[in-house]
Amino acid sequence: MDLSEQLNRVFYPKTVAVIGASDNMEKVGAWSVQNLLNGGYKGKIFPVNPSLSEVFSLKSYPSVTAIPEEVDLAIIAVPVQHILTVIEDCVAKGIKAVIMFTSGFGELGTKSGQDLQDKIRNIANKAGIKIIGPNCLGVLNTHINFNGTFQSQISSTKAGNTALISQSGGVCVYLAQTLTEANVGVSKLISMGNRCNLDFHEVLSYFTQDEDTKVIVLYIEGLEKPRELMTVAKQTVKQKPIIAYKAGRHEKVNQASLSHTGALSGNYDYYKAAFTQSGIIAIDSLTELLDTTKALSYQPPAAGNRVAIVAIAAGVGLIMADKCYEAGLRLAEFSPETQQKLKKLVSPIGSYHNPVDMGLLFNNVNLLREVIKALIEDDNVDMISISGIPWYIQIVNQALESIPNHNGKPVVHASFYSRNEEDILAKERLENINHIPNFYFPERAVTALSALHKYGEILRTRS
Amino acid sequence: MDLSEQLNRVFYPKTVAVIGASDNMEKVGAWSVQNLLNGGYKGKIFPVNPSLSEVFSLKSYPSVTAIPEEVDLAIIAVPVQHILTVIEDCVAKGIKAVIMFTSGFGELGTKSGQDLQDKIRNIANKAGIKIIGPNCLGVLNTHINFNGTFQSQISSTKAGNTALISQSGGVCVYLAQTLTEANVGVSKLISMGNRCNLDFHEVLSYFTQDEDTKVIVLYIEGLEKPRELMTVAKQTVKQKPIIAYKAGRHEKVNQASLSHTGALSGNYDYYKAAFTQSGIIAIDSLTELLDTTKALSYQPPAAGNRVAIVAIAAGVGLIMADKCYEAGLRLAEFSPETQQKLKKLVSPIGSYHNPVDMGLLFNNVNLLREVIKALIEDDNVDMISISGIPWYIQIVNQALESIPNHNGKPVVHASFYSRNEEDILAKERLENINHIPNFYFPERAVTALSALHKYGEILRTRS
Repeated sequence: MDLSEQLNRVFYPKTVAVIGASDNMEKVGAWSVQNLLNGGYKGKIFPVNPSLSEVFSLKSYPSVTAIPEEVDLAIIAVPVQHILTVIEDCVAKGIKAVIMFTSGFGELGTKSGQDLQDKIRNIANKAGIKIIGPNCLGVLNTHINFNGTFQSQISSTKAGNTALISQSGGVCVYLAQTLTEANVGVSKLISMGNRCNLDFHEVLSYFTQDEDTKVIVLYIEGLEKPRELMTVAKQTVKQKPIIAYKAGRHEKVNQASLSHTGALSGNYDYYKAAFTQSGIIAIDSLTELLDTTKALSYQPPAAGNRVAIVAIAAGVGLIMADKCYEAGLRLAEFSPETQQKLKKLVSPIGSYHNPVDMGLLFNNVNLLREVIKALIEDDNVDMISISGIPWYIQIVNQALESIPNHNGKPVVHASFYSRNEEDILAKERLENINHIPNFYFPERAVTALSALHKYGEILRTRS
Repeated sequence: MDLSEQLNRVFYPKTVAVIGASDNMEKVGAWSVQNLLNGGYKGKIFPVNPSLSEVFSLKSYPSVTAIPEEVDLAIIAVPVQHILTVIEDCVAKGIKAVIMFTSGFGELGTKSGQDLQDKIRNIANKAGIKIIGPNCLGVLNTHINFNGTFQSQISSTKAGNTALISQSGGVCVYLAQTLTEANVGVSKLISMGNRCNLDFHEVLSYFTQDEDTKVIVLYIEGLEKPRELMTVAKQTVKQKPIIAYKAGRHEKVNQASLSHTGALSGNYDYYKAAFTQSGIIAIDSLTELLDTTKALSYQPPAAGNRVAIVAIAAGVGLIMADKCYEAGLRLAEFSPETQQKLKKLVSPIGSYHNPVDMGLLFNNVNLLREVIKALIEDDNVDMISISGIPWYIQIVNQALESIPNHNGKPVVHASFYSRNEEDILAKERLENINHIPNFYFPERAVTALSALHKYGEILRTRS
């Protein structure tokens, strides 16, 4: 069975066995069954526990070998002392894909832990089994409501077009929640754990082919096979952007990384160079990860670095302009025709230079539409950033809805948060209907513009 | 009348005249009256408009001179062509404090605009009048519900202990909303506009004495009198932290700044050096402004740069640890006693090194309390950062409530956002009752720690 078919069983299982299933809600094996049931998974669930006949009203089996049907995926939630028996049962049953929550392997930093991990790897490799983990959180496929993790809240992750591959389970939860809250969402996520016989590059390759995935995010602590990842990435980025955060950057932090998922994290400069060389967008914080992902999830890449800013408040426009220069972007110099048009439209109240300061004229939907149109039609403009306020987002919606594709130019919006119900609906319309991402701070909108420019550059230099 | 008394009239007026008051909701003079009425202002309001006898059921006067009582503050919302008559009326009435929304002065960049500004400055100086503006948004005093701006939403600003002095009105609105949403709030805010005869250093001096203000935030585009500001700042920072954002940093952005509030913004390196020299914390983005303000608003300064991290998820702890090093902080090396205590408490599941990875033991309130106590009592620890998740914040509350003052050591919390009602209440309790600020991203909690360290350093080197 090839890797792609094995990973299909991981992400689209028709039948799942939960080995170590329990009805005791203090146990991971109970959480797992609950998450499958409550998450909305539509396939068949087979609890496995020799001491129980039923788990949450589902028939329980003494062993996977006793299950009367084929099992696509085994989720293993047993303590480490039972792991060899359980994996041998999986071999006997002909299971080819396994999620192993169990910890007590390489991450202990002991010889016995490493030996046990080597042993299960050898068994799995011989039998053609792919193991997610061990010492991992599991996987999620939002598009079929399959929560294959032991974390219940992750079921509420919004379905989206961003795939996450994370070495850390905790970071998976953090990002899934954060991407949901930011109205981006997740297509699939996978917590890699100790990466016993499944590594980053293999999952990356799978997500490259995944039709539900437009953007791929990597959270890496350490890699043993950086070259394999870079080789796959170079091909992937021609089709989809890859965003990577590397943790464990400092000598003193490395030790903590080792005891987390069993990987020494190594020198960050090396990683950063390798990312850049293979077209991966390296990022420096979770905020930047979020904003970069949101930009690429919503908008097309930019054809250049020339930004036009339309602002309701000159001060915020200024901040945005400064940040553009600091990010390697620049303010577009409008063509004479555009300058003429803008002069007529916003003079004498506002500024018709870039940033275009509209002041209260922003409130005039026809005027705003004409301004945005003029910018979109200017060949000197690659991207447009609208710096508004929550109670005028509905006006932005009206202005944009008659300019459907923006000449293929990326448009982003920046405005602070408002808890007013109408403002929230307008912002949802902006994002869900008009596909214009909003950012709560001007500099975060610039991070977004910068990401769209970076990915444009990657595509231009690699195709 | 001295400056302090004049600014008391601006921020605590007993009587306000709105010159150019109107009942036409398309006019600024109507917005102003509405904001006074709806914002909850308890003083007397005197609309002034020669063509109306009533404005929103309030008696209207043909001129300020016709008002039968003393007027503490005049809010001027007339078009620029009437400004000389109006200011002369203010002189005749003996008014000493004026907010001037009117634009059409120095910000036009024309000789006539500058001349008119010079003229009103001379009249005001001769009569002992302080003008806020012209070309400004006005002022807000949340503690008496006085919205002296023409912006209605600003009335919903949360009362807090942070004062804002902003050159830009738009940035005032942005920050007021953002600080409200972040549960920080504002004590007073003032939009400086063209700074005709009232400048930053004078307001800074006033806020230094203001009992409702603990933290002062400056948004600056350009200064003509940097030395005066620096001189006052050097004294202020011994009592209260000052945080400054300087916009208009790049040559190409400067021109836009000139036409906004009539100031050339100058070289940023010069500003940054001047800020540092006078003990002002210079910041680089509105996100950093928010996080720095929140930290200083909630927590005491730190005695050093040694951070202890307690994390539920090792990955997020790692990210935080990396960011600490990048911010010039370092991970505390625990004393042997602390290591012994932690080993007993979190072994074998978690890590008892720094970052302390508690994993699911985080869920045990007694254990968490003992871990936090051990860190607080360790002389090698200056600050504590708790990296949690929303649904365990209530456990953090319970753990912290029996350690009331943390030995005077700053404590911050980082957790992503949850819209679950219970989680929101727990987070509000964390901030409102326990005064521990929460940050939605690990690196933003580190910005907070860094701010607490910076202000500690400023206090140590300047007292």
